[in-house]
Amino acid sequence: MQVAVTGAADATEREYEAAYATGALIAQNGGILVCGGLGGVMEAACKGAREHGGTTVGIVSGTGDGNPYLGIVIRTGLGHARNILVAQSGDVMIAIGGSHGTLSEIAIALKTGCPVFGLASWDIDGVVKCTTPAEAVGLAIRAAGSSSGHIHRKE
Amino acid sequence: MQVAVTGAADATEREYEAAYATGALIAQNGGILVCGGLGGVMEAACKGAREHGGTTVGIVSGTGDGNPYLGIVIRTGLGHARNILVAQSGDVMIAIGGSHGTLSEIAIALKTGCPVFGLASWDIDGVVKCTTPAEAVGLAIRAAGSSSGHIHRKE
Amino acid sequence: MQVAVTGAADATEREYEAAYATGALIAQNGGILVCGGLGGVMEAACKGAREHGGTTVGIVSGTGDGNPYLGIVIRTGLGHARNILVAQSGDVMIAIGGSHGTLSEIAIALKTGCPVFGLASWDIDGVVKCTTPAEAVGLAIRAAGSSSGHIHRKE
Amino acid sequence: MQVAVTGAADATEREYEAAYATGALIAQNGGILVCGGLGGVMEAACKGAREHGGTTVGIVSGTGDGNPYLGIVIRTGLGHARNILVAQSGDVMIAIGGSHGTLSEIAIALKTGCPVFGLASWDIDGVVKCTTPAEAVGLAIRAAGSSSGHIHRKE
Repeated sequence: MQVAVTGAADATEREYEAAYATGALIAQNGGILVCGGLGGVMEAACKGAREHGGTTVGIVSGTGDGNPYLGIVIRTGLGHARNILVAQSGDVMIAIGGSHGTLSEIAIALKTGCPVFGLASWDIDGVVKCTTPAEAVGLAIRAAGSSSGHIHRKE
Repeated sequence: MQVAVTGAADATEREYEAAYATGALIAQNGGILVCGGLGGVMEAACKGAREHGGTTVGIVSGTGDGNPYLGIVIRTGLGHARNILVAQSGDVMIAIGGSHGTLSEIAIALKTGCPVFGLASWDIDGVVKCTTPAEAVGLAIRAAGSSSGHIHRKE
Repeated sequence: MQVAVTGAADATEREYEAAYATGALIAQNGGILVCGGLGGVMEAACKGAREHGGTTVGIVSGTGDGNPYLGIVIRTGLGHARNILVAQSGDVMIAIGGSHGTLSEIAIALKTGCPVFGLASWDIDGVVKCTTPAEAVGLAIRAAGSSSGHIHRKE
Repeated sequence: MQVAVTGAADATEREYEAAYATGALIAQNGGILVCGGLGGVMEAACKGAREHGGTTVGIVSGTGDGNPYLGIVIRTGLGHARNILVAQSGDVMIAIGGSHGTLSEIAIALKTGCPVFGLASWDIDGVVKCTTPAEAVGLAIRAAGSSSGHIHRKE
């Protein structure tokens, strides 16, 4: 199960904490964390996952190494277009806060039939609002399991 | 001046008419029309532009030829990631209706500082709501002129 | 007919002259010039085309404006991945000199069934060696015409 | 250490065996195997790595799941442009046989300063010819170690 986590590189303290907890819970539930690999929400989620034994994958927009908590780095050099890859690579997505970059990832996730769970994120029809990381990860895992993940994804 | 036009491939009749008028007005004002190059809103806008002497550019998601009203076709083969290229290639953007694909283009346009004008499209903070193609094209041209277009675009 | 021209951004004087002549001939034969939109061979070809009434399209790797001789700019932000788009967007390709970036474009052109004509470029099986811009453009136009261009392209 | 392995999807039996041995050796030396994630050489290398306890990452051109030996799948939907991501994501590259797609990956690896080791692959200046998987993996590991991998990569 690959869980995409999306959110701003310039996260608030509250978002950073929520992202850390989300990453930790994904790891504890055996999920692989996929994200944009940079700072803020992405870094916090990776830190949480790594410190709880999880696997982290960063699909970075440049050709550098991303944040220090990545186990695997995909150097795309694609700029904003890498957002699409993050959205497509998750069997489910958890969005934490976020601005327009996050919105573009949510949009493509919804377009391709990927369930999206939001923590104080964009209020777009189709995003399931959650109030805690535990609720978001719990629902995400259930969704990934019941739908057999991406195999039902639309083109 | 490059004007990006975005909207659904499965447009309603009303959207198709609005897109045709928008394309015609862009051409009459000397703008180059840039879009995703496929059907629906994209095709209608290209038809309007071509039938009024304009230049049309289709940045298609596959490697085919796109709709019959394209003067130039960029065969990306990038799938949904081509949306990012459409958003970045417009000095201004006009969004007509649209679903999640359109939302991803609007999000990247706003992220990179491109003015976005909407006709019955997504109600996202930053999108200037317009009621007619004439209003949208008029405002878009003024925005492209006053801001000297993309040269102030953010990374 | 879209003719892709590829070659190094740091061209020699001889390559610059060959590229200028190639661009001029493409324009005089009614072709649309598609290239990576930056300096060296790309700039020279665009200059030649524009000064002879042609249309030029730059598929740039960044999000800037490319060289001053572009009529249309596609701001990809894709880095090296934009090479693939140049290769796919030509109905035929002319390669002038060039290093590894040019080689990547030639490789994808050959893979997708696009005829490639070389002027002092890579000696790869499948590249038709030419000795003058007139020979390269002449053969390229004939190839684009006889094969009906890209409609027979492989995926 | 991320080792990119490239080669044709329609491999010969000999290439398949060499790729399997290469994947096994990468895993036994603690490397992460990165590839295009599909069949032929890519599948054989992943099979070898997985059956020897290694981690495998497939950067697939479509949005499907790739071969059955992938631990992690990056669903790019980018078509041939995903080749660039494979080349950039390896700290070193091993090329096994291969046709024009493989050539495009080698070209971008060389362009960005990534050491490339070839097993009966393209005879391009810069590719280090090897005769056995053991030689290729041995040299690749040494190169990744001595150069500190990608941190010296060119843009």
